[in-house]
Amino acid sequence: MNQEFINKLYIRQQACPTCPSPEVVAEWFNELLSTLFPDFSKQQFNSQKEFELHFEKLKLQLDQILSRNPIKAEDDIEEVADKFFELLPAIHQQMEQDVTAMLEGDPAAKSRTEVVRTYPGFFAISAHRIAHALHRFGVQLIPRIISEYAHSKTGIDIHPGASIGNFFCIDHGTGIVIGETAIIGDHVKVYQGVTLGGLSVDKKDAKVKRHPTIEDNVVLYAGATILGGKTTIGHDSIIGGNVWLTHSVPPFSKVYYQAQMNNSEGETDIIIFKGHTA
Amino acid sequence: MNQEFINKLYIRQQACPTCPSPEVVAEWFNELLSTLFPDFSKQQFNSQKEFELHFEKLKLQLDQILSRNPIKAEDDIEEVADKFFELLPAIHQQMEQDVTAMLEGDPAAKSRTEVVRTYPGFFAISAHRIAHALHRFGVQLIPRIISEYAHSKTGIDIHPGASIGNFFCIDHGTGIVIGETAIIGDHVKVYQGVTLGGLSVDKKDAKVKRHPTIEDNVVLYAGATILGGKTTIGHDSIIGGNVWLTHSVPPFSKVYYQAQMNNSEGETDIIIFKGHTA
Amino acid sequence: MNQEFINKLYIRQQACPTCPSPEVVAEWFNELLSTLFPDFSKQQFNSQKEFELHFEKLKLQLDQILSRNPIKAEDDIEEVADKFFELLPAIHQQMEQDVTAMLEGDPAAKSRTEVVRTYPGFFAISAHRIAHALHRFGVQLIPRIISEYAHSKTGIDIHPGASIGNFFCIDHGTGIVIGETAIIGDHVKVYQGVTLGGLSVDKKDAKVKRHPTIEDNVVLYAGATILGGKTTIGHDSIIGGNVWLTHSVPPFSKVYYQAQMNNSEGETDIIIFKGHTA
Amino acid sequence: MNQEFINKLYIRQQACPTCPSPEVVAEWFNELLSTLFPDFSKQQFNSQKEFELHFEKLKLQLDQILSRNPIKAEDDIEEVADKFFELLPAIHQQMEQDVTAMLEGDPAAKSRTEVVRTYPGFFAISAHRIAHALHRFGVQLIPRIISEYAHSKTGIDIHPGASIGNFFCIDHGTGIVIGETAIIGDHVKVYQGVTLGGLSVDKKDAKVKRHPTIEDNVVLYAGATILGGKTTIGHDSIIGGNVWLTHSVPPFSKVYYQAQMNNSEGETDIIIFKGHTA
Amino acid sequence: MNQEFINKLYIRQQACPTCPSPEVVAEWFNELLSTLFPDFSKQQFNSQKEFELHFEKLKLQLDQILSRNPIKAEDDIEEVADKFFELLPAIHQQMEQDVTAMLEGDPAAKSRTEVVRTYPGFFAISAHRIAHALHRFGVQLIPRIISEYAHSKTGIDIHPGASIGNFFCIDHGTGIVIGETAIIGDHVKVYQGVTLGGLSVDKKDAKVKRHPTIEDNVVLYAGATILGGKTTIGHDSIIGGNVWLTHSVPPFSKVYYQAQMNNSEGETDIIIFKGHTA
Amino acid sequence: MNQEFINKLYIRQQACPTCPSPEVVAEWFNELLSTLFPDFSKQQFNSQKEFELHFEKLKLQLDQILSRNPIKAEDDIEEVADKFFELLPAIHQQMEQDVTAMLEGDPAAKSRTEVVRTYPGFFAISAHRIAHALHRFGVQLIPRIISEYAHSKTGIDIHPGASIGNFFCIDHGTGIVIGETAIIGDHVKVYQGVTLGGLSVDKKDAKVKRHPTIEDNVVLYAGATILGGKTTIGHDSIIGGNVWLTHSVPPFSKVYYQAQMNNSEGETDIIIFKGHTA
Repeated sequence: MNQEFINKLYIRQQACPTCPSPEVVAEWFNELLSTLFPDFSKQQFNSQKEFELHFEKLKLQLDQILSRNPIKAEDDIEEVADKFFELLPAIHQQMEQDVTAMLEGDPAAKSRTEVVRTYPGFFAISAHRIAHALHRFGVQLIPRIISEYAHSKTGIDIHPGASIGNFFCIDHGTGIVIGETAIIGDHVKVYQGVTLGGLSVDKKDAKVKRHPTIEDNVVLYAGATILGGKTTIGHDSIIGGNVWLTHSVPPFSKVYYQAQMNNSEGETDIIIFKGHTA
Repeated sequence: MNQEFINKLYIRQQACPTCPSPEVVAEWFNELLSTLFPDFSKQQFNSQKEFELHFEKLKLQLDQILSRNPIKAEDDIEEVADKFFELLPAIHQQMEQDVTAMLEGDPAAKSRTEVVRTYPGFFAISAHRIAHALHRFGVQLIPRIISEYAHSKTGIDIHPGASIGNFFCIDHGTGIVIGETAIIGDHVKVYQGVTLGGLSVDKKDAKVKRHPTIEDNVVLYAGATILGGKTTIGHDSIIGGNVWLTHSVPPFSKVYYQAQMNNSEGETDIIIFKGHTA
Repeated sequence: MNQEFINKLYIRQQACPTCPSPEVVAEWFNELLSTLFPDFSKQQFNSQKEFELHFEKLKLQLDQILSRNPIKAEDDIEEVADKFFELLPAIHQQMEQDVTAMLEGDPAAKSRTEVVRTYPGFFAISAHRIAHALHRFGVQLIPRIISEYAHSKTGIDIHPGASIGNFFCIDHGTGIVIGETAIIGDHVKVYQGVTLGGLSVDKKDAKVKRHPTIEDNVVLYAGATILGGKTTIGHDSIIGGNVWLTHSVPPFSKVYYQAQMNNSEGETDIIIFKGHTA
Repeated sequence: MNQEFINKLYIRQQACPTCPSPEVVAEWFNELLSTLFPDFSKQQFNSQKEFELHFEKLKLQLDQILSRNPIKAEDDIEEVADKFFELLPAIHQQMEQDVTAMLEGDPAAKSRTEVVRTYPGFFAISAHRIAHALHRFGVQLIPRIISEYAHSKTGIDIHPGASIGNFFCIDHGTGIVIGETAIIGDHVKVYQGVTLGGLSVDKKDAKVKRHPTIEDNVVLYAGATILGGKTTIGHDSIIGGNVWLTHSVPPFSKVYYQAQMNNSEGETDIIIFKGHTA
Repeated sequence: MNQEFINKLYIRQQACPTCPSPEVVAEWFNELLSTLFPDFSKQQFNSQKEFELHFEKLKLQLDQILSRNPIKAEDDIEEVADKFFELLPAIHQQMEQDVTAMLEGDPAAKSRTEVVRTYPGFFAISAHRIAHALHRFGVQLIPRIISEYAHSKTGIDIHPGASIGNFFCIDHGTGIVIGETAIIGDHVKVYQGVTLGGLSVDKKDAKVKRHPTIEDNVVLYAGATILGGKTTIGHDSIIGGNVWLTHSVPPFSKVYYQAQMNNSEGETDIIIFKGHTA
Repeated sequence: MNQEFINKLYIRQQACPTCPSPEVVAEWFNELLSTLFPDFSKQQFNSQKEFELHFEKLKLQLDQILSRNPIKAEDDIEEVADKFFELLPAIHQQMEQDVTAMLEGDPAAKSRTEVVRTYPGFFAISAHRIAHALHRFGVQLIPRIISEYAHSKTGIDIHPGASIGNFFCIDHGTGIVIGETAIIGDHVKVYQGVTLGGLSVDKKDAKVKRHPTIEDNVVLYAGATILGGKTTIGHDSIIGGNVWLTHSVPPFSKVYYQAQMNNSEGETDIIIFKGHTA
């Protein structure tokens, strides 16, 4: 083999400390999630003392993960693990509300247990709740590893920076993309293939709000694409499947899309979208 | 940490028996699949006796999984494992037909081995064949765990309740969604991003047929969206890429979609879809 | 259980040698990738000698994988492992260029480390670089296992046969499909849901170029679908989100799509796509 | 490397079926033991149904182990697994009696739990109880694998053929050797380093009783060596530490050994052993 | 299978909480040991912060082990983990002295690294140092699990209650037994097969000193057996191989043993032991 | 925790490279052994090519182990792995002869498979054959790790430096100690608890022959202790159980030991050892 090549890689390898591997981060997230939702858990605890020690272990692991993080935040993140665990009851409550939203939003859902144990949407929003909290404390890279782990498992790609309100409902979910600076209100429902994206790809816009705002009680049907940092979907709106929006719509809008289609006899076949895709 | 929060979680944890973890269910499915398709297998058997014991083990594991299921079916499911294994030869035959359909349906496919070992479509339909059989015996949750496992691995989301005919062909597959009450005939071919969805999300419609019927010999190209429980695609039809359908079409239909597009000189650029997306 | 069924499976099982399991192939790929990109690595090396031995191990493992491959290439592939490792420095350089392209192409990307450790696009193109090299040496099945492994993890489905130029940038990526005979130039950028597909599904066309050609400096926004072996997107073109193209466009084209939409007041709402979807 | 050598090994390797590895046998034994003694267990069962299935699994595993055994018994061992599990309640009762004997026989023992979880003597006699039952059903090799597993963990070497009565007490245990044709009564207590061995090493004596008989209520102190198939230690005897016996002693014997020793002033220092070594 | 038997076991199983398995305790000990002796370690730490967190993890694990312990101490052991870790620097220093003693005491020892990484005597005394400290804090069962783990690996059986001075040297070690109430001074050297045992096996003597006292600078050669709680070996004594002692000897004694032996010509062959056995 | 203590350990930890852990070395030895003796193997090979690659992997692993060895030999050991594998056919032949010796030497042995799969003596001498070969090439520490691994599993402690002839037979084995400079001829048979030890423990004698020489066709019964570098047991001799020898005996000697014992009536009970202990 090419000796020069091996030399080059070896030098780089030496310069690179062992970061927390994505597997370690993912395992921590899984264990935390199954602590918050026993339906999800593989473990049993024989006493409350033991359960408390389990929490301490999770906190310690977070501490270790943060201390090996190759990309440091600017500010002091010494006490992030402490602060994160203080915030956990509130995060847990949000997750419970998300379960409620998904149970109520999907006719096929039979029980909270089914949502918790099988819904990719629950998994993805839970990962986001955790990743977003860490992101807000200024932690670099780790939140992204968590959200990419959920992306890999569910096909749902939510940037840790996105701000998402309570009672968030995802159905099916594959192909959803929610950008870094998106802002989403409460009681929003999102189907597979929805994109909340940007209109600009200039590196110089990295610190600008590049993704849309979705107000409360909005439904975004499958494949809807909403683009741009100034685009706002007013509350109580419904955006139809495959709709493409790059400007704002006022509250209570119903935007659906009307395509021309030719059937096999060549006649025009007007399809008016009135419903949804789930 | 917040003691009250920990107490609350601990109480819930105590109330929750250890269900069969999704990993256990997934492993059982993988082992069953590799028993049916040796190409897929990591194991070797030295005698027929040993192979028979392996089958008994798989049946015992299913029994264990069902006995730990936190959501019980209404009816007696005592003999589900027995009945399931009696059905297995028929299920296996269906899977073989699915392999045939995918081998013949994809110019890039070189051999049955390649389909079995690498096609996400084969993996997803196999999971569905198993999950659907369990679902029909009245088993709760476990079929959904199996289908979500396949969803997670392939991006193909088929509800265990969907009824799918023989010689089913999936190509690429990412983003496919097939709803709980969909009915699909024989020799149907489905590309990535196809949705067979519902028009209603009312919880009160949970027991109504909410998803479409696809008759024999239909091809659904990439991104086609067919919605509604009363929508039927007549046999031998072709539904073009990205077509959006919420009403029925008769047999031998060819529905494609004609969009207006402006090219860079501002001229209208009519694209007639005549082909497919694979 | 059905004895005849078990007998049949057992006979088939005996006829089937133990192939390299997809897990083994995936693990080899992961270890190779983390050798090329220490940021990704879980391992540390204490001396250059040790690092060299690690390379030899990777080569030996490839040799083992190839020797157990149930589908043999026509030609002699005896020296594939040697030749592949000779090519590795060049492949590595391409991967580095892909990192550069993704870092520069996404405003949200903070560092090369973040791209390497968290971007599904980097993972998918890296798998393709490896799979494609093996494919070109005439190796059957194994390249497909590698690309399906990446497909399963990222939702990005690139056939090992596709020819992709330098500085390839993928953003988000879920749902991307790139066909076997696609040819892509340098500095091309592709968003989620893009399909480079075929127009024909005849088995007899298996050896014909069925997928499009994308020249240098092209951007394909989310959901764009380009179909057909004779379709060429001229260099420096931009293809808008959800655009559907089955014929060629000249260099410097800007193809976007203009849909009619009715807003909630029934007025037509013209949406002109001018931007992008990330 | 020497090609001829590799060829030779490869041919032998091909001729050799994959036997149940010692690890598989050991794991089966460990799981069986922890089912009989929950103190030892790492597993929890949520219902009696589940516990019963666990038993069935253990029986199935035994069936698999026996069916892969490279050395077959002469007679039909088809139903050994069934017969063994029928015998299990009786074996379990014997083990309970062994716990009682060790708890009462060692001043340092605090509880049954301590004996079950930490005493090598308990582990070794339990392995023997299981191995001996299989040995009596005519199973070859597997009993020996079990007893050598216990030997490796405890330094206590009991041949599966040895017949050992109830309430058997082992203290410390390292170095104990009990031969194939030894017969031991009830309430016998044995310390570390005791040998019950043979006087003949002729292969032609393989089917003759070559090891001693120990009647009820005998104590064998550390390092005692009793040799020969005709040697019988009468009931209620005490054999002192390091005593070497090759002939029988009547009931109620107390055999101890009297050595001459010179202390540092050269005087003879007579040591009369009256006690024990634990 | 016998249903009554299974019922009985199931009831007992339900009554038995999941204790910390011996594997968990052993793993904790191994990790602690490799933290104290990096030569032994499989892990690397990239920063002091990370190393400190590793210590915290070990403390947390000890806390968890103690909280699951099925046998509780009488007194409050709430703060045992804290107190144990405060004591750790002193324990570590003792272990270092033990390494020194073994390096100096064995002509075959080449380096501290060799002693730490390969000497069973080092492993056994290290386990004892840890187990004894926990034992002194009143912890039940766990110290015994640690010492039996070392017994199983090394054949050296030291009860956690034994009090052992500094600079303890073990050579070879297999078969060594040191009883619960033995007291050993500094700079003592012990060879394989040495027993420091009791003369009484009455349960009522459980709280009495039953095992001997060994003063400073004593050498006990292979197979020496010292018995009884009132037996004291005076300082600077040498006890020869296989010597059997049940009474005290004064300081500076040299006790060796003189056996009569007949050589093959029937002549008496007096062997005077003057040396040692290593 | 004590900060200074942690600092001290951290500094030492940093100074210590990650050596090959004993587990890695043990695993390599186990895999090598099971390659040489398929009865022992858990793996199957589908082609000779694959089997050859397996050999290359074992050689590569040895290379890696040697390159991480913290204690280097004085001389160049660059080519040790090559030389070792050249020697392997000869080592293998010796092991086969050891199997023959154990099969013929133990009336309880039923087949070569039983010896290979269950005899601790076979395991220990095999480890010695490998360790001794590496020792002779000047490798430090690794041979000792191998022999201590076998010691831990079998209780048989053979220093890698000992020179042992062909057809070596070990029965039971627990407690055997064979020192660094012992020399043993062909067709020697050794029972449990035999020591071939030294008379001097002076560090300055480290390079002198300190352990005995055993000529061809000698039998050493259980517990026999032979000491001193000048002690030679002449060929065709038999050394009785528990005999203690510190001087040489001529060929064809039969040394047994005659103890005085008092039976329970106080009469002297002369025991003449004529047999053996197995």
